[in-house]
Amino acid sequence: MTAGRKMRLGSFLTAVGEHMAAWRHPDAPSGDRASFRPYLEIARVAEDALFDLLLIGDVGPNSDAPLETLVLNHGYDRLDPMMLTAALAVTTRHIGLVATGSTSFETPYLIARRFASADHLSGGRAGWNCVTTSNVSMARNFSQDAPAAHDDRYDRAEEFVDVVRGLWDSWDDDAFVRDKASGVYFKPEGLHLLHHVGAHFKVRGPLDAVRSPQGRPVIVQAGSSEPGRNLAARVADVVFTTHQTIASARDFYRDIRARAAGFGRDPDAVKVLVALMPVVDATQAAAQAKLGELDALVHPTLALARLSHALGGVDLSPYAPDAPVPNNLPKGIGMQSRRQPLLDLAARENLTLLQLAGRTAGNRGHWTLADTGSAIADHMQEWFDGGADGFLLVPPRTPESLREFAAAVVPELQRRGLFRTVYEGSTLRSNLGLPCPAPRRAR
Amino acid sequence: MTAGRKMRLGSFLTAVGEHMAAWRHPDAPSGDRASFRPYLEIARVAEDALFDLLLIGDVGPNSDAPLETLVLNHGYDRLDPMMLTAALAVTTRHIGLVATGSTSFETPYLIARRFASADHLSGGRAGWNCVTTSNVSMARNFSQDAPAAHDDRYDRAEEFVDVVRGLWDSWDDDAFVRDKASGVYFKPEGLHLLHHVGAHFKVRGPLDAVRSPQGRPVIVQAGSSEPGRNLAARVADVVFTTHQTIASARDFYRDIRARAAGFGRDPDAVKVLVALMPVVDATQAAAQAKLGELDALVHPTLALARLSHALGGVDLSPYAPDAPVPNNLPKGIGMQSRRQPLLDLAARENLTLLQLAGRTAGNRGHWTLADTGSAIADHMQEWFDGGADGFLLVPPRTPESLREFAAAVVPELQRRGLFRTVYEGSTLRSNLGLPCPAPRRAR
Repeated sequence: MTAGRKMRLGSFLTAVGEHMAAWRHPDAPSGDRASFRPYLEIARVAEDALFDLLLIGDVGPNSDAPLETLVLNHGYDRLDPMMLTAALAVTTRHIGLVATGSTSFETPYLIARRFASADHLSGGRAGWNCVTTSNVSMARNFSQDAPAAHDDRYDRAEEFVDVVRGLWDSWDDDAFVRDKASGVYFKPEGLHLLHHVGAHFKVRGPLDAVRSPQGRPVIVQAGSSEPGRNLAARVADVVFTTHQTIASARDFYRDIRARAAGFGRDPDAVKVLVALMPVVDATQAAAQAKLGELDALVHPTLALARLSHALGGVDLSPYAPDAPVPNNLPKGIGMQSRRQPLLDLAARENLTLLQLAGRTAGNRGHWTLADTGSAIADHMQEWFDGGADGFLLVPPRTPESLREFAAAVVPELQRRGLFRTVYEGSTLRSNLGLPCPAPRRAR
Repeated sequence: MTAGRKMRLGSFLTAVGEHMAAWRHPDAPSGDRASFRPYLEIARVAEDALFDLLLIGDVGPNSDAPLETLVLNHGYDRLDPMMLTAALAVTTRHIGLVATGSTSFETPYLIARRFASADHLSGGRAGWNCVTTSNVSMARNFSQDAPAAHDDRYDRAEEFVDVVRGLWDSWDDDAFVRDKASGVYFKPEGLHLLHHVGAHFKVRGPLDAVRSPQGRPVIVQAGSSEPGRNLAARVADVVFTTHQTIASARDFYRDIRARAAGFGRDPDAVKVLVALMPVVDATQAAAQAKLGELDALVHPTLALARLSHALGGVDLSPYAPDAPVPNNLPKGIGMQSRRQPLLDLAARENLTLLQLAGRTAGNRGHWTLADTGSAIADHMQEWFDGGADGFLLVPPRTPESLREFAAAVVPELQRRGLFRTVYEGSTLRSNLGLPCPAPRRAR
């Protein structure tokens, strides 16, 4: 590990928390999640704790689920990620603001313009979480009968990102001379038309936006499939990933850096953040009890639905929830990457279906540490060595879990010299230690 | 006129001003238009003056213009209207915020969600300026070789608006019960899927957004063609229009109200705002000198290019700019609605091409009053009688022209009982005196 290397810290931003049952906690506010105030409060907690960034997701429930399961889901009552980002841009001062925008449903021109605006409004703190969307029920809101196939989605995403980056470079930094005497508003040589013609998009340019403070807003990607990793390694400044073991994290870390080098990039210019759900308390027992209290609040129907999804879309209705997980469960047609680790866990601990569901539904499958601040810092330090450049917190409850993390873990990391004690710069790139795109100047 | 009927006042929001040459004024700031601060300053001037709303346009230069003309244009260096709206939503308190969103390039789901979010962020002050886009060079940024034909654009717009309004009604106001004890987050009967299938869009719903404070954000439309007027009369809460004479304004006002009644609507539920560029000073001579000073700053090449456009796309290069306007100008293939009024004006006042260009380029063809505050109030009062429900200011310079209007015209209107002295309500609808959509409640 490079001496003096600093850990990057981000957090998901949600109104009540990332744990499935956060809203059922006795202390959780029962009010509206469409109000700006809780988001601003959480953002300020994270900013006071010197976090690098907040990530604003865009995952709604699957509205094709049976209605009796659907009504147990929160998530419909959110604010649009980009609008929320713009609002936070002018009410926070230091923290990076990363909004999710889908390459499957948006258009490159408007994405380029909105993130350029977010970068201007925030003074250089904007990032774009560039995703592809496989949610079937969401596709049906965009004149599609089903989402595009996986590889097609990534094919479109590759071209989408190139168009967005090209549009961000429409203007030299010094293009707008605004010469009152001559009436010339911009230098002709400062304008660069894109003239993009590709398989998915035709985009002439220029973007109607001044080049933004960061030159290019930070691009965040979370690909884990083969095409996803390649997209991340080629274009992402920050890669967000989820792992249950340090071995898996280290494999991924090596792999992404190698792929980035393969694309001719400096591997250090790609920051890998591992998802971590932290539950902090004065003792390990107290922390685990706190997590257990939340897990117990996940509705069994919802927990089993989530487990079915995590097992690849297996129909669990023929099996008794209170009997041990059968060792002959069929395969579903969905995502398979979590099936075997879950079955191994059930076998190892002799869990019932409902117990397995309870262990995985609440935290949505993210690496979870319920422990003291010092012990959590130990784990983070260990993973930081070869497994991550930092962590993206998945706070079970907000703002409570972030406040507890800020009070107990951040000072510990700072004492160990692993985390900043003051923001290094004014832009997200400078705080992350990312290279800034060279200024564009007329030749 | 109904006794006690109040005038509605809005203003375009631009960083430096709506006059073509505002940026060349000696006092104009030479800095960036991508900074939030000037927008916020202008918004607060308008809010202190008790204006109903700000309209954030989305018209960029035509990048197909010859480069030597293009470099004279401001307008590339703006902020995205929706992002700017979100930022202003959390930094202002009373004024309505209307952002432009094109039905030609956006998708209904995201428009519905973003304006719902704007309504939440602002506490019920959001509006959508629903436009179709005919700009050729902008179409080329959206994988189109040319904009759709006029009637096709409106056909899409009609369906687009219906989908957006349907999505805004996805949830009953009391759908989200968040019952901690049972784990039920929303009442099943509070969810309404749209299941829209039309010529342009297939949208299943629901919108992932709580029903917003206004139920439906205010819809603004500026159609003047036959399909444009029908769209406005059918769906708009506010119609924005531009006229040079009171006779023309009254014809339009009668026509829109009759069409609205034809669609089964109360004509008073459609507020017609006429564009007005006000130039205020202590005497008429001083105001006209102030306007003349700005008009003289319009670059002749730009002025002639604008005149060519306003005449319907006539090539003016064969004609001497300093000779009288020829009486045998050919017809262009562009918009024809302004050609004859301009030729009549030239004949009446024996203007040269360049003089005619200067008279029309600066104010972009909007009704312009350069006079004392009291005289301007006289004209507004006259038009308010049968020609308008209010006015959308096109301030030549911002914030200066708005400050002058607020100081000299607003108090005059208030003395005459024509304008509010305090905001009537907390939402844009309540201030405009528009009906609020009935709350949706489970049957």
